[in-house]
Amino acid sequence: MRLLFKLFNFYLSKDKYFARRMFDVLGFVPGNITIYKLAFSHKSSQNEKSVLSQNNERLEYLGDAVLGTIVAEYLFKKYPDSNEGFLTKMRSKIVKRKTLNRIGDKMELDGVLQEFNNTRLSRSMLGNAVEALVGAIYLDAGYAFTQKYIVENILRRYLDIHELENYDDNYKSQLLEWCQKHGKTISYKLISRYKYEKRDRFKVGVFVNNQRIATADDFNKKSAEQAASEKAMIELGFLTEEDDD
Amino acid sequence: MRLLFKLFNFYLSKDKYFARRMFDVLGFVPGNITIYKLAFSHKSSQNEKSVLSQNNERLEYLGDAVLGTIVAEYLFKKYPDSNEGFLTKMRSKIVKRKTLNRIGDKMELDGVLQEFNNTRLSRSMLGNAVEALVGAIYLDAGYAFTQKYIVENILRRYLDIHELENYDDNYKSQLLEWCQKHGKTISYKLISRYKYEKRDRFKVGVFVNNQRIATADDFNKKSAEQAASEKAMIELGFLTEEDDD
Repeated sequence: MRLLFKLFNFYLSKDKYFARRMFDVLGFVPGNITIYKLAFSHKSSQNEKSVLSQNNERLEYLGDAVLGTIVAEYLFKKYPDSNEGFLTKMRSKIVKRKTLNRIGDKMELDGVLQEFNNTRLSRSMLGNAVEALVGAIYLDAGYAFTQKYIVENILRRYLDIHELENYDDNYKSQLLEWCQKHGKTISYKLISRYKYEKRDRFKVGVFVNNQRIATADDFNKKSAEQAASEKAMIELGFLTEEDDD
Repeated sequence: MRLLFKLFNFYLSKDKYFARRMFDVLGFVPGNITIYKLAFSHKSSQNEKSVLSQNNERLEYLGDAVLGTIVAEYLFKKYPDSNEGFLTKMRSKIVKRKTLNRIGDKMELDGVLQEFNNTRLSRSMLGNAVEALVGAIYLDAGYAFTQKYIVENILRRYLDIHELENYDDNYKSQLLEWCQKHGKTISYKLISRYKYEKRDRFKVGVFVNNQRIATADDFNKKSAEQAASEKAMIELGFLTEEDDD
């Protein structure tokens, strides 16, 4: 029955062009075409004539959760001896906007987005489309299929897991390097120390040429310095919003 | 085959006491007993004699993700017309520490934790055990079973979804009420305004009797005031750590 649906979608339905497009991108013919169309409907291109009353944001919400679980288990099994701190950190490196945008790029979702939206593409639309697509596959084909599909066709194919392992967001050393290169002084100062949830919390400021660029709070000074450095890098314009998220 | 395993676990294995205990708590006999034992092994009670080389933290990490997805889909289907903002907010109300601790309480996990750990129970161990248990069920019985089990035996049984819908963490009005009752003045001041990711960000302080109690940052003043009020309530000792998370 499901196969018949798919054949119909592919050869006969009014959506056959979209079904074929999905086949190009995904490597399988969708069952429920409408959900996949929704996955590519960005809110900015909705208008009164839109066939779909919704945009892809609900699917993004669902896909974000499903992808998070698939990635969580993938890492859980790949690193049987690693603690949850490492696993959590690796997971956030994979599901963060920047990585998802790259995956969307490699999946060539930009073409589909461009065809089905009358709006200017932004880079973050790629990552959002990946999430929405995961949501669509999940609703269309269930968890087991989605898991197998994502692991084989996305994680194993598009992720360089060892690069991610070694990649460290060390903003403090990046900022230091930049300052040295440009002959600027850099210093960190403890601005305040207070109690939060009965624990000590530190507010740290980063100063470039004695000018305060950014501050950040955390439960230890080192992390606060990292966070302040990251904010400073955005402030100074050499981290874009995408990099940061 | 799986049934034979279960019968063995229940009647014959050296773990039959634990298997029966799990049956009391969960309503089904576990297949892989070891994983469930792990779910109740808190790191603080591990010692050299521990049979299990690991504690429940990896299972918590996995269970957190699985539970997040199950809750995400439950809400997605329960509220077909709500936007992703509402769904995300509802989801975080359900998976937050406080709610999970309550669920652990209702599942009477404290008894099991007490029996299998030689450590003092803290309230947050309950919520952690719920997550670890979800991770264990998932590894033991797969996604479909876990989903059905969680929806029917946890979400529908222990959650008052309408209460959660209406519950609003309005810390500002709670703090105001407290100050009025105790004859104290309260005021909010904008401490600084800066750019973060090219957006305006506000640092707001809350002052009780002109003394600064807490500060918080957010992209709009209202949210920063809420966050500062919440911190102030913790500072003043009438929100506990558990309430906050």
